[in-house]
Amino acid sequence: MSQAKASLEHLYKVFTKPEGEDSRLAQIETQLSANLADFLSGHIVSEEIPLEKIEQDFSRAQVPEQPQFVSDHAQHLLDKLVSKSVNTYSPRFIGHMTSALPYFHLSLAKLLVGLNQNLVKIETSKAFTPLERQVLGMMHRQVFANDEAFYQQHLHSATSSLGTFCSGGTLANLNALWVARNRALPPLSGFRGISEDGLFSAMRYHDINQLAVISSARGHYSLAKAMDLLGLGKSQLHKLDCPKQTLDPQEVLHRGQKILEEGGRVMAIVGIAGTTETGHIDPLDELADVASQLNCHFHVDAAWGGATLFSTRHGSLLSGIEKADSVTLDAHKQMYVPMGAGMVLFKDPLAGNAVRHHAQYILRQGSKDLGSTSVEGSRNGMAMMLYASLHILGRQGYELLIDQSLAKAHKFAQLINEHEDFELVTEPVLCLLTYRLCPGHLREKSKKISDTHNQHLDELNRMVQKQQREAGHSFVSRTRLSNETYQQPITVFRVVLANPLTTEQDLQAILKEQAELAARQPLWTQL
Amino acid sequence: MSQAKASLEHLYKVFTKPEGEDSRLAQIETQLSANLADFLSGHIVSEEIPLEKIEQDFSRAQVPEQPQFVSDHAQHLLDKLVSKSVNTYSPRFIGHMTSALPYFHLSLAKLLVGLNQNLVKIETSKAFTPLERQVLGMMHRQVFANDEAFYQQHLHSATSSLGTFCSGGTLANLNALWVARNRALPPLSGFRGISEDGLFSAMRYHDINQLAVISSARGHYSLAKAMDLLGLGKSQLHKLDCPKQTLDPQEVLHRGQKILEEGGRVMAIVGIAGTTETGHIDPLDELADVASQLNCHFHVDAAWGGATLFSTRHGSLLSGIEKADSVTLDAHKQMYVPMGAGMVLFKDPLAGNAVRHHAQYILRQGSKDLGSTSVEGSRNGMAMMLYASLHILGRQGYELLIDQSLAKAHKFAQLINEHEDFELVTEPVLCLLTYRLCPGHLREKSKKISDTHNQHLDELNRMVQKQQREAGHSFVSRTRLSNETYQQPITVFRVVLANPLTTEQDLQAILKEQAELAARQPLWTQL
Repeated sequence: MSQAKASLEHLYKVFTKPEGEDSRLAQIETQLSANLADFLSGHIVSEEIPLEKIEQDFSRAQVPEQPQFVSDHAQHLLDKLVSKSVNTYSPRFIGHMTSALPYFHLSLAKLLVGLNQNLVKIETSKAFTPLERQVLGMMHRQVFANDEAFYQQHLHSATSSLGTFCSGGTLANLNALWVARNRALPPLSGFRGISEDGLFSAMRYHDINQLAVISSARGHYSLAKAMDLLGLGKSQLHKLDCPKQTLDPQEVLHRGQKILEEGGRVMAIVGIAGTTETGHIDPLDELADVASQLNCHFHVDAAWGGATLFSTRHGSLLSGIEKADSVTLDAHKQMYVPMGAGMVLFKDPLAGNAVRHHAQYILRQGSKDLGSTSVEGSRNGMAMMLYASLHILGRQGYELLIDQSLAKAHKFAQLINEHEDFELVTEPVLCLLTYRLCPGHLREKSKKISDTHNQHLDELNRMVQKQQREAGHSFVSRTRLSNETYQQPITVFRVVLANPLTTEQDLQAILKEQAELAARQPLWTQL
Repeated sequence: MSQAKASLEHLYKVFTKPEGEDSRLAQIETQLSANLADFLSGHIVSEEIPLEKIEQDFSRAQVPEQPQFVSDHAQHLLDKLVSKSVNTYSPRFIGHMTSALPYFHLSLAKLLVGLNQNLVKIETSKAFTPLERQVLGMMHRQVFANDEAFYQQHLHSATSSLGTFCSGGTLANLNALWVARNRALPPLSGFRGISEDGLFSAMRYHDINQLAVISSARGHYSLAKAMDLLGLGKSQLHKLDCPKQTLDPQEVLHRGQKILEEGGRVMAIVGIAGTTETGHIDPLDELADVASQLNCHFHVDAAWGGATLFSTRHGSLLSGIEKADSVTLDAHKQMYVPMGAGMVLFKDPLAGNAVRHHAQYILRQGSKDLGSTSVEGSRNGMAMMLYASLHILGRQGYELLIDQSLAKAHKFAQLINEHEDFELVTEPVLCLLTYRLCPGHLREKSKKISDTHNQHLDELNRMVQKQQREAGHSFVSRTRLSNETYQQPITVFRVVLANPLTTEQDLQAILKEQAELAARQPLWTQL
């Protein structure tokens, strides 16, 4: 490969001159724009390549000394990176929450980098700041449905914050629990507040030995991470068992009362609107009432399920969310925005003040800079992507997307139920469901399959999932799931039916492939 | 404006059919690619528009009901957003750390969104995971310069982590202090470690009343934010005064000894390699020794200055950084990568285990998934942008960029020193400097300007900075700065000379405009 020379000319060129139309990078861009599906299926090698083999191409820990021509590097990226990436656009990649995106995001991504704004501060973002505030307002209204006067008062107020954009649900949950923690331990005489004096003083002044969060065992792992980060400790996260996949409000209440009796305090209850594994929704309305009884913060992690609010038909699945003190949303999930568009919303526009901070050269007091109540500092203008989607798809467009995803999940559930070799493990509440290979004769014999049989089924399902992934035609994920029927968790396939390009034929093909893979396993015939 | 209908056809089109070549969005893309400077200067209104006026265009808190055609929305973005954004590419926008980027990032941004990988997990990122690990390894080697065997052992090991990518320096600093906190309070008999049992138990079991961080008053505001988040409290961040802009290692040692004597513990010392306000570098080598004496973590915030290591000539400004336990770098600063490319590096590849977490459906134990030691969860493949830059620019390219930035800063300092109306306040150490308008006769009269005169100068400089910003031809930022000469902080202009497109003519034009603006102020003539 030829090498460019590190001259000021070469440098000046990469900063000022676009690649010619015949350059490799320009060709790649043209192909990307012309037909993304073809580009991806044409360049990504479908069969799984062992990770160890891929690592060999990325094993040099020395920064290259000499510059490289852009075209040479573009070809290198195609050969070594693109070819071995994951085709998330594919209608048969239904194992995770990443799906095909609308085309306009390709062009907008270019615009975003061309503008390269920094949202931490108005001086480096100008109109992007009001835009982000508007988008937060739109999502806030979608969730909390306050009246027009409320939004006119708070949307652009320097002392209000309807929420914060961030890279994803993990940071959104952290931001919410951070606010909840700081509000739970307000200043007292001699104590300036936790933000200033820290948790150790806070717990002594408030005379409590525990500051607990109650959630479901199905809660996202970011909750435990947040407990660690915030200094509360994972042991203060009370994850209640959920054989029915959702929290029982009475159990939450009892656990909360017990914590209070033991000298602790409940800092927050976290309800989930769309669990990562099965898409279940906690009884938000009743949990809000329990939070009110326990006088604690009520957070709803709607990273996955939040977009359901766009659907007139299914939005009521989330009823009670409007009573939450804070809500996590991920626009890069069911809102079809590129990776990196998380949000936390606060019911009370003043809640963010519990974590507000300032600095002299940046984030001056009274300014409308967005960085003063967020976990992150410098951030890009990702809000533009959601803004564009909200306008180009509109509420009705999102409604159609949500409705057809749910319809597809029900269709897939029906296909599974009708198939001799499969067992539906969790019904779709949103567009997620879990199922497993399980021969019909086993299910007929008794309502309850023996532990030994389940262990064999676990092994079988694990192997089939792996082999299907390796073959590269389609991808479903797997997890281990507790349920009402069995003592032990069982291994299941997990699918997310959010890709609007996925057809019934795709779903049938996936089942067919799994059944064929199973038939080839000695285990299958022994069952 | 015409409205699209929310039909499945419309939806299917936005997911599958690119815009035609004559569409507004395609036209925008063509213009962007052909000449970014022209696109930006042609579309961005240079004069400052009052924020309140911009907000009027972003004041609707209702999600639009109907879909919109892509072309209509693209024109709307141009008119309302792009026109009122900040021209960070401009060679005369030298007030903040955002600068022009190499052209190839425009195309790569498109590729990144087309691929839409999620780095939290190998299943949704494949080759992007080894790539990110390699990039972390390259930066690790640039900082810590371990031998080849070290990198071959740790680069792709499931139990090692050379660092973490994140959205920016704020998260990187948080991640570093999180690791430092958890390592400072290891498990004891009856205590399972802070991660599990929390800070309250940790401090009781370890029998300490304070867990302190010592840094300079010039430290980034994210340090205080991290103290709040981690539950330590901002009051445990000891920000030592720095009239010379850098930490005095002896003062750090004394403060540390005092904390120990009072029953506290020093958790970390934070050194800065390139302060946000003036670009100064703390004496890293001596601070490392103090950290060793106090037996605490040594973190270096090199978000700005880290890239200096690429320069043979100037790299030694950071000597001692290789003794740090952790280092923050921002590739979106002096490495010319789009916004959102922060990193934290750990000297000890096992340090990250202090915050390692797992989940069943994701981040299985023993996997190489990148999400298990990071603050963030889902993340995009931004590492590709840095990977491309490291290859296309090479170390030599970065060296040239760094060297010419510093040369430019020295040139600008000279222009300021030669100009009758200006006073250089801080010399450039890296490519940042501060100065102010200050008539020559005031400086001649005495070494020390009176407080009353300084107050007038503060007001004058504030007004000139504002008027220059509003005129829109160029932008310098301002801050208030403590220094050795005066009791009170003074208001200064702050410039960052990282844009390779900035010429000496640009710098002269900026000074000329400021001098002319000053001459028009009644205050100027009264001084």
